[in-house]
Formats: sequence, C-alpha cells, structure tokens
Amino acid sequence: MTDRVTEILQSKRDTYVQELQEYLRIPSISSISEHKDDVKEAAEWTANALRNAGMEKVEILETKRHPVVYGEWLKAEEAPTILVYGHYDVQPVDPLHLWETEPFEPTVRDHKLYARGATDDKGQTFMHIKAVEAMLEAEGTLPFNVKFLIEGEEEIGSPNLDDFVVAEKERLSSDILVISDTPMLEAGKPAICTGLRGLCALQIDVRGASGDLHSGLYGGAVQNSLHALVQLLDSMRGEDGRVTIEGFYDGIEAPSEEEQESMKALGDGDESMKKEVGVSELFGEAGYTSRERTWIRPTLELNGVYGGFQGEGVKTVIPAEAHAKITCRLVPGQDPDDVLEKIEAHIEEHTPAGVTVSTTRHDKGKPFAAPVDHPAFEAAAKAYEKVYGTEVAYTRMGGSIPVVETFDAQLQVPIVLMGFGLPGENFHAPNEHFHLENFDKGLETIVAFWRELAEQQRR
Amino acid sequence: MTDRVTEILQSKRDTYVQELQEYLRIPSISSISEHKDDVKEAAEWTANALRNAGMEKVEILETKRHPVVYGEWLKAEEAPTILVYGHYDVQPVDPLHLWETEPFEPTVRDHKLYARGATDDKGQTFMHIKAVEAMLEAEGTLPFNVKFLIEGEEEIGSPNLDDFVVAEKERLSSDILVISDTPMLEAGKPAICTGLRGLCALQIDVRGASGDLHSGLYGGAVQNSLHALVQLLDSMRGEDGRVTIEGFYDGIEAPSEEEQESMKALGDGDESMKKEVGVSELFGEAGYTSRERTWIRPTLELNGVYGGFQGEGVKTVIPAEAHAKITCRLVPGQDPDDVLEKIEAHIEEHTPAGVTVSTTRHDKGKPFAAPVDHPAFEAAAKAYEKVYGTEVAYTRMGGSIPVVETFDAQLQVPIVLMGFGLPGENFHAPNEHFHLENFDKGLETIVAFWRELAEQQRR
Repeated sequence: MTDRVTEILQSKRDTYVQELQEYLRIPSISSISEHKDDVKEAAEWTANALRNAGMEKVEILETKRHPVVYGEWLKAEEAPTILVYGHYDVQPVDPLHLWETEPFEPTVRDHKLYARGATDDKGQTFMHIKAVEAMLEAEGTLPFNVKFLIEGEEEIGSPNLDDFVVAEKERLSSDILVISDTPMLEAGKPAICTGLRGLCALQIDVRGASGDLHSGLYGGAVQNSLHALVQLLDSMRGEDGRVTIEGFYDGIEAPSEEEQESMKALGDGDESMKKEVGVSELFGEAGYTSRERTWIRPTLELNGVYGGFQGEGVKTVIPAEAHAKITCRLVPGQDPDDVLEKIEAHIEEHTPAGVTVSTTRHDKGKPFAAPVDHPAFEAAAKAYEKVYGTEVAYTRMGGSIPVVETFDAQLQVPIVLMGFGLPGENFHAPNEHFHLENFDKGLETIVAFWRELAEQQRR
Repeated sequence: MTDRVTEILQSKRDTYVQELQEYLRIPSISSISEHKDDVKEAAEWTANALRNAGMEKVEILETKRHPVVYGEWLKAEEAPTILVYGHYDVQPVDPLHLWETEPFEPTVRDHKLYARGATDDKGQTFMHIKAVEAMLEAEGTLPFNVKFLIEGEEEIGSPNLDDFVVAEKERLSSDILVISDTPMLEAGKPAICTGLRGLCALQIDVRGASGDLHSGLYGGAVQNSLHALVQLLDSMRGEDGRVTIEGFYDGIEAPSEEEQESMKALGDGDESMKKEVGVSELFGEAGYTSRERTWIRPTLELNGVYGGFQGEGVKTVIPAEAHAKITCRLVPGQDPDDVLEKIEAHIEEHTPAGVTVSTTRHDKGKPFAAPVDHPAFEAAAKAYEKVYGTEVAYTRMGGSIPVVETFDAQLQVPIVLMGFGLPGENFHAPNEHFHLENFDKGLETIVAFWRELAEQQRR
C-alpha cells in the first residue's frame, strides 16, 4: 500500500467512524412498513456517500418496495471491473429492553461500535466506500474499475433484487463480485466464505372457535388453537433434532472431499460456540458436529410462536387464534419452493382436529456454493494474509444472502465473500456491535485486495 | 311477590340499569397491578351500593391485595340468615380489537348489556343488592337476615379469601350461602349448579442461549427455546385429547348414578356447543360427550404461549426465551397441589436438551360437589319455576369459583349456585354481555327464593 493511502486512512479514521455513526442513526428496518421513510433516507445517505467518494452516475433506483443505490467509476481502461454488493437495510431491534444502549444511538465502548447495522451490513458496506474514497483522494485515479450495488431489502430476503439484477445485467457486468457480509472465523483469523445456506420462510395461522373462550365453560370439549399449533409444530422435528418433514433432506449435495478435509482441520467448533451463545450444552441433528450442523446441514427454526394471554398473571382463556413464524436454512441441493411445498403438505396431513390452518410464504433464497479455483480468491487470501499476518480460512456460512445465488446465475462472475465481522457480534440480536480493529484492518485489506486484483491483470 | 316490590322493581328498572352501567365503567381488573386503584374504586362503589340498599355495618376489609366488601341486615329474629357471595373484580379485556364497543363503556344493544363484568359477576352481584333494596323499600323490613360478602380477587383465584373466611367465620355464620356466578342451561331454562371444577395454574419459562441468536449462524446447532417449549407442551397431551401427565386422572370421583342419569336426560350438548363457539367440529377426551368433558372431566389448557418475533414479516432469530401459561380444570377427587406437583415432575422428566425450564405456580382452587337434598334447593327450584314457568335443571359447571370449596369446608352450610347468565355471553372473552331479560326475571327470582326460604322456616 502506498504511504499516501495509509496516511489518509489513519488521519481520517475518527472522521470515518463519526460518519458511520451518522449512517447507523437511520433506523432503516426494511421489514417494518412504518420505517419505509427511514429506509429511503438510508438510501439517500448511501448515494451521497458514493458521490462524496468520487463515484459517478450515482442513482437511487426504485423497486416495488425499497430502492437500490448504484454508483460507478469506470475510467481504468483495460483494467478489471469490481462489483461491490452490500445492503443499507437492517434487522428489527426487539426485544428492545435487552439493548444496553439504544440500537440507533451508536456508541463506542471498549473499541467496539454498538448499533443495529454496525456490522450487518452498514459498517462493512461503508468500508468499501471509504476504501475507494481514500484511494481516489490519494492518487486521483484507481488501477481498476468499480461498481457499487447497495440494496435495501436484504434483511427481508431481497424480494425485488432478482428482477433488478436480471433487468440491469448490462449495467452490472463485471469481472468479480465482492461482498462483505460474512464473518471471520474468529478474532485475528480472517475467512473467505465459499458457501451460504439458502432460506425459506412460512407463517402459520391456526384458527379454532370464533372467539376466545372461557376455559371453565368450554375447556376439554373444544380444540385449543395453541395446543393444536404446538402439536403441529412438534410434529416437524424429532427429539433427536432431525426435521421430520417428509423429503426434507432429499437431494442434499455433500461438499467436496477437499472442503470436508479443510472443515475437519478447523475442529468441530463446539467449545467456541458454547461460549459465544452462553449455553452449557449444544443441541442439533444427531451425527454431525456444530460446524457441520451450521455450515452444510439444513435446519427448521421457530422464530416466533404466539397466541393467547401474554400479560401478568393468569387468564383462563382458550385462545381462538395461534400463530407461528418458521424459517428453514437450506444447503446446496435443496430448493426453497420445494421445501415450502413439503412443509405445507406436512401441515395439511397433520392438521389437528377442530381447527383450520392457513399458511403464508415469505422470504426465499437459494443456497450457494462457490468453486474456489479462480485467481480472485488467491488475491483475497494474499490481502488478508498481508494485513492480518495469518493464513486465511476457507469457510462456509450458515446464514443466507439470498441474492448471491442470483448473482451467480445471472452475472456468472466469481463471487468473493470476504467479511470483517466476528462471530458473537450479535447480528440480528440485541447489542449488535463491530470491533473497530477489524474496521481499521478491513480498510487496509480491501485496498490490498483491489491492488492485487489489478496486479494480477497486469501480469 | 307483593305488588309493592314488583312495582318498585318495574318503576326503577331503568335507574337500576343506569346504576349498573356506572358500576361496569370501573375497570376493576384484579390480575393487572396497574388497575389496583380501579379495583379499590369498585370496592368503594360496592360498599356505597350496600349502604344505599339499607345494609348496616358496611365495611371495606383489606386483604394482602384487593379488599373484601361486607355488609349485613340482621333484624329478623328467629328467621334464617342468608349469606350472599359475589365478586366485583373482572377479567382482563385483551384482545381489545375484537370488542365491538369499549369493554368499560357499557352499551345496551338488542336488550343486551355489553361490558366486561356485565354478567361475570358485577351484574349478578348487583341484582342481589337491588333485590334487598327493593324489599326494604317496599316493606321497611325483611323476613330473613342477610349478609353480603363481595370480594375483589375471584378472577385471580381468590388467593386471600380462604384466610379471610377462616378468620371471619363468626361474622359469616349463616344458614345458607347463595352465589350467582354460574350460567343457566340455555335461554328460558334456569339451572341450579351442583358442582364446580377446581383450578390450578402454572407459568412455564424456558431459557436457552444467553441472548437471541441469528438463525443463519447458529441454526441447527443450538437448541431453539421455542422448539423446546413446543416439544415439552406437546408431551402433555395425546392426539386423542387425553392428558398424558402421569397420574393426572388418579382418584377422580364419578358423580352419583342419579346425577349421571339427569345429565344424560339433558343430552350430550354437542350441537348447542358447536353453535355457541362457532366450530364445525368439537374436540376432547375420547369416550366422553361434550357435557361430560366440561362438567365431570378435568382438562389441561394452554392459555398463552409466546416467544420470539411477533411483528410483521420475518425475523430470522433463534429466541433465547419462550413462555407458556397453563391452567387445569379439576374435578372432585383431584387436588390442585397434587396435580401441580405431577405437572412439575413431568416437566422435569421431559425437559429437552439444551434449555433450562422454570415454573411458577399461580391460582389454585379445589373442585366442589354439593349434596342437593337440603330444602334450600327446593326453595330455589320453586322460585325459578314460578318466574320462568319451567322446571329447573340440575347441572354442573366446568368453571371454577375457588372459594366455594373453602365456604363448604369452613362454613358448612348448603351452597346454592343459582345463576342468571347464559352460555355464549362471552364471560372472560371480548364482547361479554348480559341479556336484560334475565336481569329482570332474575330480580324477581331472587325475591321469590328468599321469601320461600323464610316461608320454609315458618312452616
């Protein structure tokens, strides 16, 4: 790295963190309608940041729900074009009472920046923008071309980005796609992610009597919608942790032997996971390690179950309605629509007597696995090793970035998933935070990676 | 009935209904702490109503939580003493959006009075007060003695009334106890209730990881507290509707052959129940009719289950906490403490891997069955038949009035449960209401019953 870029990154570091805090103050929760204007404000903030960084043709492109922000700098002839993808929307923040400081009042404590979106993904998106800004400021030019595609619907499953990518294929054409939305393996140990789980989501609504009933007068003679829901949900998983939806595991592709070897070398991950989540005992599908359970095995999770009385004390009621929100994480070989159909068929077959059950499909995203023999992966590994002084780990991730599979299918470029977040930084949970050490090292790594990509081209 | 009492009841009818509406405007929800002052206000209102009716020694007697209201008129020498029990507290009102008019804005529609507490039990308690008031107004005296005991904790299981009854045994001594808190069999068909189910309640709290987790990063490797709760709750009931807690049905006393015959004569109750609750299919313990399931069989009900995300859309979270509120309705031969112990033992034995489960005991009330050979029952039946022109039905009730068993044990007087509410009047549910026809006929019936009791004594 030239001294001038390093100098700028160092001298402007506090300004950058302050700017990021401004970004994090915008409560751009994409799943909640009343935050629609906040999401819009975050899009505008993103667009301005791109303009300030020196990007051209910056546009806020409307979709059916939340807009996409685009910007480019394409003045490096004969040089490779890097497409950077990120998202400016964030997860909801409840339960609010578990946050130590307000989710949208960013606070630095102990070299960590606390706020919803600090890592996932405003913080990491922001780093890419600042890396380009610093390089342009230092040198007036770049040794590569760059395009930014920053969306506002990632946390709701990117429902409109697929269409957008298909429609804007030309504009998005590039030689490599970079995404920073995956975690490092652990503190000090960077990772390139070679696979992501897919996702599908279903809301289940159970209806019993026409209204809530007195449990004394009717208890025992009328189906209790909560009990029916509990019976239905319990029928979906065995006590051994295996999902019992018929055909759920059909067609799953095992990772290559090489990947399995590399996974084994990292250990089972049990002890660090116990520590991270604060349990004395892990639980999952019999016959697999924790790492395998989260990286290469699918899961069905209850994200919310609710019905009846939730207040203080007792209410002797038979609730008329009961509800559940479930999501599945899927692995290569599984298809979200196919899995949803299987769950719906299971529900139909197992609906308890005395209630009606309806379902609503929500988010979907296909699983993804990257072939890692492209030189771009070597460039990323080199950059990480240079800054962090250690070999990079090749990992998979249990989470989903639904649009990655679309990028893969539509753009047909290598996708490098290089993240700077750490496990335990509470993405999607209260007290989300970002270790600022990785903000600093990440900026250097991004610059080093891009320089290496440009070098490769010249060689 | 003397013309004068009838005249007063008729001429003051609208005034009475207006006064009752005033009573119903007080949101005296005993289970919610923030309504403590409202409960107190309702106690004061009750005390004033007793004073206005001509009762003496009216007192508001404090307990550990909500006060008891007492009043008496004891000037009829050699005449029997009637103790009237009722309650001025009410159930919570959620889900509020299902109420057609505000629960504490009483509204008359189609000869029905809509409000929380309209029947259960402010409306019925109020009728007894007004019956005495009209008789005293008409005749300046009563042919019997009367004591009122009106409490504010019935809807939370009367936690302090047991101690109160024991301590105030002398003050409460009487020849007969009358309670109007049970329903008629159906419109036009009055009923005397000869048995009540008991009650016990338990809160179950499940704790998994130390905080909510991202379902992508941890899904499949960490126990989901909601899934664990669902598994635990489902283990408590079979698909045939039978409770599977070990020993749950032990010791249940079958009703006498006579009662069983009388129950059979009333039919299984299935069709009317389906209509009342708006279902096409009933569900309950195999081998019993709906009437038996609610009158003479115990049940375990989920009154509330909650955990995780309940908002709009999707949140891909593994919730750290999950909660359930359960109550059992018990029948003669079962003991609430014993049943709670059995449920707790079941929970301990069936706690899923990877979570801790804690329980909190709430309300308790023993089941009750009355021997109906006392002449007071004959007097009540005569009064009903006189006003309604039809034979009274002897019924049991699936609901609980926990203190009845205490009265039975402590006061050792016949307890006559004669109610004026109708099934389908939504006690404990949105849109609770009271058919004013039974308000009018009920007042006449109460007067006729008391006169008949006094007559019996003189014979």
